[in-house]
Amino acid sequence: MVPRHDFDLISVDDHIIEPPKVWTDRLPAKYQEAGPQVVTKDDGSEAWQFEGELVATMGLNAVAGKEFKDFAMDPMTYADMIEGCYNPVQRARDLLADGVRGSLCFPTFPRFAGQRFTTAKDKALGDLCVKAYNDWMIDEWCASVPGLYIPMMIGQLWDPKLMAEEIRRCAARGVRAVSFPESTTPFDLPSFHTDFWDPVWQAAVETDIAICIHIGTSGRTHLPSPDAPYSVAVALGPVNAQITFMDLLLSGIPERFPKIKIALSEGGIGWVPFALERVDRTWERHRYWAKMGDTPPSELFRRNFWVCFIDEFAGLETRDRIGVDRIMWECDYPHADTPWPNSQAEVTKMLKDLPADDVAAMTHGNAEKLFRWDARPDVDAILGVKQSA
Amino acid sequence: MVPRHDFDLISVDDHIIEPPKVWTDRLPAKYQEAGPQVVTKDDGSEAWQFEGELVATMGLNAVAGKEFKDFAMDPMTYADMIEGCYNPVQRARDLLADGVRGSLCFPTFPRFAGQRFTTAKDKALGDLCVKAYNDWMIDEWCASVPGLYIPMMIGQLWDPKLMAEEIRRCAARGVRAVSFPESTTPFDLPSFHTDFWDPVWQAAVETDIAICIHIGTSGRTHLPSPDAPYSVAVALGPVNAQITFMDLLLSGIPERFPKIKIALSEGGIGWVPFALERVDRTWERHRYWAKMGDTPPSELFRRNFWVCFIDEFAGLETRDRIGVDRIMWECDYPHADTPWPNSQAEVTKMLKDLPADDVAAMTHGNAEKLFRWDARPDVDAILGVKQSA
Repeated sequence: MVPRHDFDLISVDDHIIEPPKVWTDRLPAKYQEAGPQVVTKDDGSEAWQFEGELVATMGLNAVAGKEFKDFAMDPMTYADMIEGCYNPVQRARDLLADGVRGSLCFPTFPRFAGQRFTTAKDKALGDLCVKAYNDWMIDEWCASVPGLYIPMMIGQLWDPKLMAEEIRRCAARGVRAVSFPESTTPFDLPSFHTDFWDPVWQAAVETDIAICIHIGTSGRTHLPSPDAPYSVAVALGPVNAQITFMDLLLSGIPERFPKIKIALSEGGIGWVPFALERVDRTWERHRYWAKMGDTPPSELFRRNFWVCFIDEFAGLETRDRIGVDRIMWECDYPHADTPWPNSQAEVTKMLKDLPADDVAAMTHGNAEKLFRWDARPDVDAILGVKQSA
Repeated sequence: MVPRHDFDLISVDDHIIEPPKVWTDRLPAKYQEAGPQVVTKDDGSEAWQFEGELVATMGLNAVAGKEFKDFAMDPMTYADMIEGCYNPVQRARDLLADGVRGSLCFPTFPRFAGQRFTTAKDKALGDLCVKAYNDWMIDEWCASVPGLYIPMMIGQLWDPKLMAEEIRRCAARGVRAVSFPESTTPFDLPSFHTDFWDPVWQAAVETDIAICIHIGTSGRTHLPSPDAPYSVAVALGPVNAQITFMDLLLSGIPERFPKIKIALSEGGIGWVPFALERVDRTWERHRYWAKMGDTPPSELFRRNFWVCFIDEFAGLETRDRIGVDRIMWECDYPHADTPWPNSQAEVTKMLKDLPADDVAAMTHGNAEKLFRWDARPDVDAILGVKQSA
């Protein structure tokens, strides 16, 4: 018997370290050599190879389970990591033991929004890689622990019509979310201020899947100088979400697609009340010359956007300014910001004095609604012990 | 008789549109031709000329007194603006009629932190231009209305030792603040993560003057794409302050100069509680590998930093998380964000239900302490009417 957990948690932002065979198991023979595969270098380090080039280090930031003193931003090998980084069954044990019974996972080698394949020299291979990841997500990662993992897909960013088709294909297979970059122009693709992406938005609306935008997916950091320590970039991570928030709220997309659902992942929540005041003030004062729409941007936010928190107090104190129905919790397993394996203790500090309805909404209720998620994993079976009542 | 105002306001961020003769009145004959001067172009527009080139439009954003519907980001002429933009006596009437009895003003043609002269081809001329501005600030702008304008200087950013000398010279003449850029690397100068600026910090500490860092002084905007509307950049203005906040808190400067006083101007306050949590969490988790100092950054903030607000509610609600002694009010006259001529009404909305001590600190007390300012203008004389008791 293990004690029941105080908080019923769904995490809307975790990270997969893909096991080596995601693509080799799925690509046709002609693409086995060019497709993504893990290689071990002479110095013992591991890396992903794609189209003949080493393109990504392994397990960057996969530090879950380590002491803060042992944190480093160095590449890791599979052997350096806890098994839950890449094994969905072991991760299920890790999460459920910590009272986390739902998890939405972003990819790593494909980059958080699948941008990797946008630069594929062979776009037919890129297309197959996207589909292979999505099938692996559905058939292996999620299927291995029914009810735990909320399936999220990536898309063919270089071709919005192809991506729209893939959204429809995956939605029919149960996918509930698509990962999308916080800005598209760094990949030489049109911005949010064009109609280029309309097929994607349209497909997401029609299939009622959420668009999840993770910080860092533009590849932009906001280091003020080349010699500023990397810790400045870490501390400034949420600035990316603020930029995307303003960019999308003033893009016209929420007006053109009133049912679009956009979640800003790992962006935090504490800056939102300020940003809502700021964007409304900008709208109030500048909408005439800047030809903005008629709806205050804060109204668009409260209809079309969701945000999430890991470990914050000020943001929770001002939750009514954000909208309690907009806020979700995330675990960020296995990255440096994760509270795991102390999620319950960390959540207790933040939520213990808050009204039960607010707690239920933010810990799991809003995620269940946004992702239309009513499944539950078989906790007793996975942990191999019965939970106390 | 005019009614007394409910709130006793000192504004820590206003903007001067320099009158045409600031430099021509002061530069020696040999520099009259190359020095800053206003020229009228064939189309009737006015611009500043420096070293033979047109380098700045006039009155950008000097929209005070206009309806929101008439706001534009276009250049203006002196005739387009209200006189208070460039005339300190008329501005005194404007401010005092609105209950603003103290004002710290940033330059416009020299750019907000005097960066203009850093690119002077003739550095001897640049040096004279900096000194001319500072003397004009003290001898004309401030002297014309004793007790109203808190004197702020600019410096020779290309030469920190020269700038340190100028700080000492101006401090002896009563200057209380120096304007400094939010990032120096855009001007091909060393960053905050070097000892290049130590003479400046040392001089500021020795003379007990505050370093005021205005948003936008890096020249960086955070437009996510070239085609994003400029309103996105307007809404994202405060992101600049967040970047500088993280950059300076993690630079080692507050540790090396424990008495340094840094004010983030026009950056807002509502994001600060979130940023304090974020920087402390970054410090807690990453300080080992990133070799950070021993003091939580939030402690450095509460000792060495000040922030200011124009029109915010969430930030004021969470003021205890910032530190009520860190927060000041600003009017931003004559820019697009100014509440003038309705400062009293706007402040009333924000502060009417707050404790009197907090209100006194934020509206004027903190500014009086930070800038060592105990002067007061002769309101009755300037307005030409007696105020009611």
